[in-house]
Amino acid sequence: MKVGDKHYRSLWADAAQGVVHIIDQARLPHVFETATLRTADEMARAIKSMRVRGAPLIGVAAAHGIALAVSRDPSDASISEASNRLRATRPTAVNLAWAIGRMRERLAAVKPSERAAAAWLEAQAIADEDVKLNEAIGRSGLGLLRHEHSAHKRTINILTHCNAGWVATVDWGTVTAPIFMAHEAGIPIHVWVDETRPRNQGLLTAWELAGAGVPHTLVTDNAGGHLMQRGMVDLVLVGADRVTRRGDVCNKIGTYLKAVAARENDVPFYACVPLPTIDWGIEDAIREIPIEERNEDEVRIVRGLDAKGELAEVRIAPSSTPVANPAFDVTPAKYVTGLITEKGVIRASEKDLLEHWPRARESKAYLT
Amino acid sequence: MKVGDKHYRSLWADAAQGVVHIIDQARLPHVFETATLRTADEMARAIKSMRVRGAPLIGVAAAHGIALAVSRDPSDASISEASNRLRATRPTAVNLAWAIGRMRERLAAVKPSERAAAAWLEAQAIADEDVKLNEAIGRSGLGLLRHEHSAHKRTINILTHCNAGWVATVDWGTVTAPIFMAHEAGIPIHVWVDETRPRNQGLLTAWELAGAGVPHTLVTDNAGGHLMQRGMVDLVLVGADRVTRRGDVCNKIGTYLKAVAARENDVPFYACVPLPTIDWGIEDAIREIPIEERNEDEVRIVRGLDAKGELAEVRIAPSSTPVANPAFDVTPAKYVTGLITEKGVIRASEKDLLEHWPRARESKAYLT
Repeated sequence: MKVGDKHYRSLWADAAQGVVHIIDQARLPHVFETATLRTADEMARAIKSMRVRGAPLIGVAAAHGIALAVSRDPSDASISEASNRLRATRPTAVNLAWAIGRMRERLAAVKPSERAAAAWLEAQAIADEDVKLNEAIGRSGLGLLRHEHSAHKRTINILTHCNAGWVATVDWGTVTAPIFMAHEAGIPIHVWVDETRPRNQGLLTAWELAGAGVPHTLVTDNAGGHLMQRGMVDLVLVGADRVTRRGDVCNKIGTYLKAVAARENDVPFYACVPLPTIDWGIEDAIREIPIEERNEDEVRIVRGLDAKGELAEVRIAPSSTPVANPAFDVTPAKYVTGLITEKGVIRASEKDLLEHWPRARESKAYLT
Repeated sequence: MKVGDKHYRSLWADAAQGVVHIIDQARLPHVFETATLRTADEMARAIKSMRVRGAPLIGVAAAHGIALAVSRDPSDASISEASNRLRATRPTAVNLAWAIGRMRERLAAVKPSERAAAAWLEAQAIADEDVKLNEAIGRSGLGLLRHEHSAHKRTINILTHCNAGWVATVDWGTVTAPIFMAHEAGIPIHVWVDETRPRNQGLLTAWELAGAGVPHTLVTDNAGGHLMQRGMVDLVLVGADRVTRRGDVCNKIGTYLKAVAARENDVPFYACVPLPTIDWGIEDAIREIPIEERNEDEVRIVRGLDAKGELAEVRIAPSSTPVANPAFDVTPAKYVTGLITEKGVIRASEKDLLEHWPRARESKAYLT
């Protein structure tokens, strides 16, 4: 998408120089800056510290991390070491393991002297596929929003949680692709943006929507139930870090609360998700998906700009205050009206998912 | 309750000096400071800016504001002007109008030369009654927690939202009274404390619990559904700014989301509320209770301590970002397991409430 007049992806490689450029999301929405990463270790640290974030993007980022490793040392040991380091950065999203697995499979078939070129090509292919997936999800969601607008004949109010926007992907965004396309198509929409504590990724969404001129309003995470109860939300659109074969959606902490309130208020709840994000190996989402417990100081310390407009932090709770900081939760399929995928809007059930993604039949644990 | 070794109320009068002292809640939990208010206008500004806050306390504070006005000018005009100014500070909690009405009724029966003494006595009586009410609510809730502990024979996990603690009342707190009493009685409890954006009043609750040595953990407002889904919450305890005759609970924004998730997960949900907080004049909570829309910058700007330990603010969203900031929501009675009142734990229904509060029969709109 454009930042000012220039089109950006959130990550792009310079294979000739052996480097990867990223939009530094730790400084957004306050400061727009790009950064250059030169090693797999730098990429791993960028993923862990969430300078690169978003389930789709961290898969692409990990693939590029492997390419960085291979372009310096194409040995099996180097690939193994980089894979382990990259995989350990974030435990919840499935894309990371998937992208690393795909890179390893590709590189195993190539002799070391040709691996660097193959790795850059494969990483680029993964990035390009992500863009195509998001465009296709956008078209699926555009159909849904067009339908909603025809039904209501007024501005369609969407509630979203966290950021599944273009900076969380390579481009477009899973949740924002339908929104950008609907806005472009002249369908009147307005987006309620959950701030999404503790890391306030909703501010990234607000920044993206402002950049594209889409009407939106920032609210606290507490407000969504009230808005639904008053008929001020027509549908909820969220992303997903993992979706199980049964259609359970694992996404940013707080998604579950919105899904439960949505069902209670007859508000349709959709997860925008590429079919490859589905983890066919999970039977019981609540028992089996590891929920990342992040640093306590994410809750105690809030980042923003100080009075001089410089990046600053304030401590809202003393370090002696005990904190729990689970980063994700699971929304069982029964609360999910549908999954907006690259193959259309699909019911969140094993049967419907298998119809659209028959490859999953081949293996119970497709991704392992 | 004690702060260090000294017992404090959150507000106390010095009638001889014609002043009222408050704990300055705008600076808590970072700095414990008291402030002295000398006029009704100063009291009104303290209520509006939430240096004095909490539904029970703002009623007591408004009564003292009337006393401040009367002790300077006991005329009817002075009382009217102070009443209007104080009533306009906060629209949602019913206690404010109730306490002002009670003061006016008392003062109307007294000739101007005796009004100052009468006003200080009546304000003191309202404060003392609040303490007694909270103690009685504490005993009701203690019975419930004792019962829960007998049933589970392990630590009882309570989730709470916002601050209905002792600083939100004159002493004890509606939600914290049962907790303090259970802790004193040796019942093992642990409290999940919602931070409660945008104003983070959960930090006041954490400060109060830490002061009394009650085990607790601060979480974001997004986490509660996840905790309930995993069986980590035994009951939810919240306060209330208004309760209707039908048992609908109006409380801090986000309460409704927790109540819906609680019912979905078979977690009992209780509001701790003095029977005088019930607004017998409201038929339809969602249509009739005015929901305060607070300043947008409460969402955009977060307060805390900077690196030097000084009070500071950071801006998390630019002033150009549109914001909505509804301060309360309504939890319909069907989600409320019970009301913990000074007369015991009562089902949230008109029939049950009338049984315990027969005065309400006398008038459909008792409080007007």
